[in-house]
Amino acid sequence: MTVASTWTVTGMTCGHCVASVTEEVAALAGVEDVQVDLGSGRVVVTSAEPLDRTDVAAAVEEAGYALA
Amino acid sequence: MTVASTWTVTGMTCGHCVASVTEEVAALAGVEDVQVDLGSGRVVVTSAEPLDRTDVAAAVEEAGYALA
Repeated sequence: MTVASTWTVTGMTCGHCVASVTEEVAALAGVEDVQVDLGSGRVVVTSAEPLDRTDVAAAVEEAGYALA
Repeated sequence: MTVASTWTVTGMTCGHCVASVTEEVAALAGVEDVQVDLGSGRVVVTSAEPLDRTDVAAAVEEAGYALA
């Protein structure tokens, strides 16, 4: 069983930004896949269990960006 | 004796872009300092000898950007 959740990240402007966000979110416990769309800022996360917004926000901020 | 030259790089959008360009240009032979201004795209390079535009362009392209 996996859960897909969609988040919106602001401030990403290039592929390096996408790579940073992907890396940090992928490091969260239980995360199996992270797909980032630069144009829309949408981040689709597949995880074993539902994620806490606080945890996702912390990962995004670690990368230097913010959740909308 | 050092020479300062100024170049304009297009396509940089964030600090990661600046870091990539700085790293590649700094790796050119004789380069002693690289200062990138993200807003203007200006790159000021301090080097022991005058640089060839071809070499600077190749370094910038290696980073994923282009000289104006």
